[in-house]
Amino acid sequence: MKFSSKSLEEAVEAFASLPGIGKKNALRMALHLAAKGKEKSQAFSQAINRMSEHLKECRRCHNFSDEDVCAICRDPARRSHTLCVVESARDVMAIEDTQQFSGRYHVLGGVISPIDGVGPEDIHINSLLDRVDKEEVEEIIMAISPSIEGETTTYYISQRLAQKDVKISIIARGISFGGDLEYADEITLGRSIVGRLPYKTNDNL
Amino acid sequence: MKFSSKSLEEAVEAFASLPGIGKKNALRMALHLAAKGKEKSQAFSQAINRMSEHLKECRRCHNFSDEDVCAICRDPARRSHTLCVVESARDVMAIEDTQQFSGRYHVLGGVISPIDGVGPEDIHINSLLDRVDKEEVEEIIMAISPSIEGETTTYYISQRLAQKDVKISIIARGISFGGDLEYADEITLGRSIVGRLPYKTNDNL
Repeated sequence: MKFSSKSLEEAVEAFASLPGIGKKNALRMALHLAAKGKEKSQAFSQAINRMSEHLKECRRCHNFSDEDVCAICRDPARRSHTLCVVESARDVMAIEDTQQFSGRYHVLGGVISPIDGVGPEDIHINSLLDRVDKEEVEEIIMAISPSIEGETTTYYISQRLAQKDVKISIIARGISFGGDLEYADEITLGRSIVGRLPYKTNDNL
Repeated sequence: MKFSSKSLEEAVEAFASLPGIGKKNALRMALHLAAKGKEKSQAFSQAINRMSEHLKECRRCHNFSDEDVCAICRDPARRSHTLCVVESARDVMAIEDTQQFSGRYHVLGGVISPIDGVGPEDIHINSLLDRVDKEEVEEIIMAISPSIEGETTTYYISQRLAQKDVKISIIARGISFGGDLEYADEITLGRSIVGRLPYKTNDNL
């Protein structure tokens, strides 16, 4: 791609460095901003700058936060005795979107994966154990994606928590809403049968 | 999508305002930048800022440029007697990529389209006529996309140029390289037959 403008070329390269963005799309984005005018472009780059300056990890739960402690940890209305353990801060957003959980979170920042050289010390397991003691946690909900690494992590954490007086639950696995039984893999289908529930007509989800 | 960080939310909104970018992709981009660290994020936003400050239209040909007159118009090696007329500065980039044209360009900035309220006065036709006189242009190559509006624009410009001593050509239309005759539309196929060329084995493209 030949550019007659150095500044345009550099903006296109900046966009093309983002995941999933090719050169043509990057050009479309840069020209869209250029067409919007100087003020809009600078508002765009200021939003990026503000994020790079303010975005950090919550010191308590490792969620995204602009403050030392995130809005969820600071919210007195959230039940502090229930902790939901997730792999990443994006999972927190996904669970918050369901509006079905009113406790607090603990973000591990990864899962145990010997192949990738990630051991229990590399993710936030020790700070989870600390919180269980300090915050008088009564229930831990393990909400890790069901992969081999995820299951290993869930098992490892449950073992470390075994001596503590805390209830451990795991999110339900089964057939997705709208999913087709015929095409479900056998592990999921098997689990949905083993983990069958009494039928109620007033389930509110 | 619920955010625990205001700065992240605003960065995601900024990305999601770009064409073809949904919320999930915008989040992926913002987090990619956040993970790269403050320095990389700021280099990114500086590239956007520089573009918004420097990018303008070449005063002569209306191509993208960081200067008053673009690099192509300033290049003494480009033949100034041949002008290629295109709809947008992106078309200039596409033709430059072919490395088959060594003249200069004239960017119209649109095509005549009565439905969209775009008349001959709204695109850079008058400045094209000025250039033909001032720059002693000998040949005009019309390289406008073959749509109804494009054909109308080409016809209109050819009429305006009729009194002047300038040769007008049009880029060849026909079957694309790799194209399948069977699936070509009848207008294209018809034109490729009417515009047939003597067969040569040493065509260098």
